[in-house]
Amino acid sequence: MGVRLGVDVKPIEACCEPLLAGALSEAEAEDLAAAFKVLADPARLRLLSIVANAAAGEACGCDLVAPVGRSQPTISHHLSVLTEAGLLTREKRGRWAWYRIVPERLDVLRDALSPRA
Amino acid sequence: MGVRLGVDVKPIEACCEPLLAGALSEAEAEDLAAAFKVLADPARLRLLSIVANAAAGEACGCDLVAPVGRSQPTISHHLSVLTEAGLLTREKRGRWAWYRIVPERLDVLRDALSPRA
Repeated sequence: MGVRLGVDVKPIEACCEPLLAGALSEAEAEDLAAAFKVLADPARLRLLSIVANAAAGEACGCDLVAPVGRSQPTISHHLSVLTEAGLLTREKRGRWAWYRIVPERLDVLRDALSPRA
Repeated sequence: MGVRLGVDVKPIEACCEPLLAGALSEAEAEDLAAAFKVLADPARLRLLSIVANAAAGEACGCDLVAPVGRSQPTISHHLSVLTEAGLLTREKRGRWAWYRIVPERLDVLRDALSPRA
């Protein structure tokens, strides 16, 4: 899956050690870096922000191409990365897929940046 | 500076719009993505975690090469990216530079991932 998507996408649920709680091992740092890499793209951030603010909390894939200003295949790619990472859920209904944000996965990343206890 | 460092590093202080508060513009998304890109590297995350947990809250650049397992020029590069982004401060004393974490800058990124009010 990582190869097909061009980025090493793991479900964010599986990570992440807090950045400040102790020195990170290489494996812990790789998992956390991969999670931040999912967010390190403007098109993906725009997709997340649009879906999060959509009416009824869900957005049709068909309504995401125009506002983000990328091609349909590019949008599809980024939606796959976000879904694979667990930041979006996808539900197929007829011809289109509908997306919802999974705020708990953003919480995981926020918690990884929390100050030391 | 961005060209020299190989990544587009802006001070994180200057950004960032909350991801979930409304649909991000392209410019807002680019700033936020650039900030997450600084964190999307395992060596940089290890450096941050080591400096954050160093005795007296500061670490000598001379003590950062061995634990992270990269070459000295690579470590220097990553320390420059982190300093440029405002996540570390650097103080030169004699031959060596000493680094401290700036937790307020991580707070900026954490806040950008906060749930909608």
